[in-house]
Amino acid sequence: MSDDASPAAAQRTAVVSAALELFHEQGFEATSVDQIARAANVSRSTFFRQFGGKEDVVFADHEVLLDEVRAYLAQGHDDPWTAICVASERVFRHFAADPVVARRRYQVVRQVPALREREIVTVFRYERMFDDYLRRSLPGLDPLDAVGFAALVTAVHNHVLRRLLRGEDVHPDVLRTALAQASARFGVGEAAEASDEVVVAVFPRSMPTAELTRRLREHLDD
Amino acid sequence: MSDDASPAAAQRTAVVSAALELFHEQGFEATSVDQIARAANVSRSTFFRQFGGKEDVVFADHEVLLDEVRAYLAQGHDDPWTAICVASERVFRHFAADPVVARRRYQVVRQVPALREREIVTVFRYERMFDDYLRRSLPGLDPLDAVGFAALVTAVHNHVLRRLLRGEDVHPDVLRTALAQASARFGVGEAAEASDEVVVAVFPRSMPTAELTRRLREHLDD
Repeated sequence: MSDDASPAAAQRTAVVSAALELFHEQGFEATSVDQIARAANVSRSTFFRQFGGKEDVVFADHEVLLDEVRAYLAQGHDDPWTAICVASERVFRHFAADPVVARRRYQVVRQVPALREREIVTVFRYERMFDDYLRRSLPGLDPLDAVGFAALVTAVHNHVLRRLLRGEDVHPDVLRTALAQASARFGVGEAAEASDEVVVAVFPRSMPTAELTRRLREHLDD
Repeated sequence: MSDDASPAAAQRTAVVSAALELFHEQGFEATSVDQIARAANVSRSTFFRQFGGKEDVVFADHEVLLDEVRAYLAQGHDDPWTAICVASERVFRHFAADPVVARRRYQVVRQVPALREREIVTVFRYERMFDDYLRRSLPGLDPLDAVGFAALVTAVHNHVLRRLLRGEDVHPDVLRTALAQASARFGVGEAAEASDEVVVAVFPRSMPTAELTRRLREHLDD
């Protein structure tokens, strides 16, 4: 998500990359911190300064991304619904930018139940962050709309991301379209912006056709 | 959810109830299996036959409910979207039937990070079950609609359930209304049933009024 190219960040990336390669080759359980440190050419103490343990290496990117999403949302946005979609796209682009590492991580997570569970918990942190942000940004918003939108965006994001991680070549527009559709279900985002382009008319089936076309005409000719 | 009143089930319920009371009074960590067994008047071996460990007592109801939801969905339903909402309402009614125990469990879970994480993972099992069921029931369904609807229903369910667990007196109709609204966002469920009552027309703003009234007339007069 960020272009953080500091030496510390580069070293961190190298450790993650080396660890995922070892996890992938010889299994998560069978890989020791010593092996990771050796492969990444860092000391044990450097490893533990950067990561709490082996599991944390797998989720290191999410910690950075969650911080970045939090910071992005905190900037304040005219349209909080769209801001959430933009944040979701940024997270996606982070993984799409290095699909080899992202896919390796996915393979490792899939094989270790404890990592799968931690991933579910991690994904929920994005969802709750979106939920909290919506409620903060829109006082008076029905909390059901906040939790529902946050859950829908997160689920859509994950589905599209999972397609990428399984090896599909997923263009970022796929996510953008899916998020636009999700927003439209809540009548927000670009769908709402585009209200000049589209007219939605809802009327009782029992209304005489002549009457409803009269009303529509009257309305549209305004 | 079920009216399982077998002696084994009654004993299981007694153990859960005794355990939650102890967890609530003296904390989850400080409570031993021996104490739970003694309080529920069962042997240690009976405890371990019924539950894998202390954590499992907290989530025992979910295991039963997940099995019941799975069985209910497997019966086959004309409208899978509505079946998911019905399943969600059943789970809610299970907890609403004994709010004292449900609230005690909620208090315990809130105080222990490992239990909170396991709850998130457990909730996700419902979501995935709904997702899988939709895809199985409706071949050709866009997976995005399946994951989105499953996530939305699960989030709405949890929000309403959480209100109950926090002490509010939540009538089941609150959930029913919220699920109907969620279904309407996907154009399914009772909203779809009511299509005879309402006509929704969507057309480009750029379309000449005469043309759209002509199309509407043509459509409605069918």
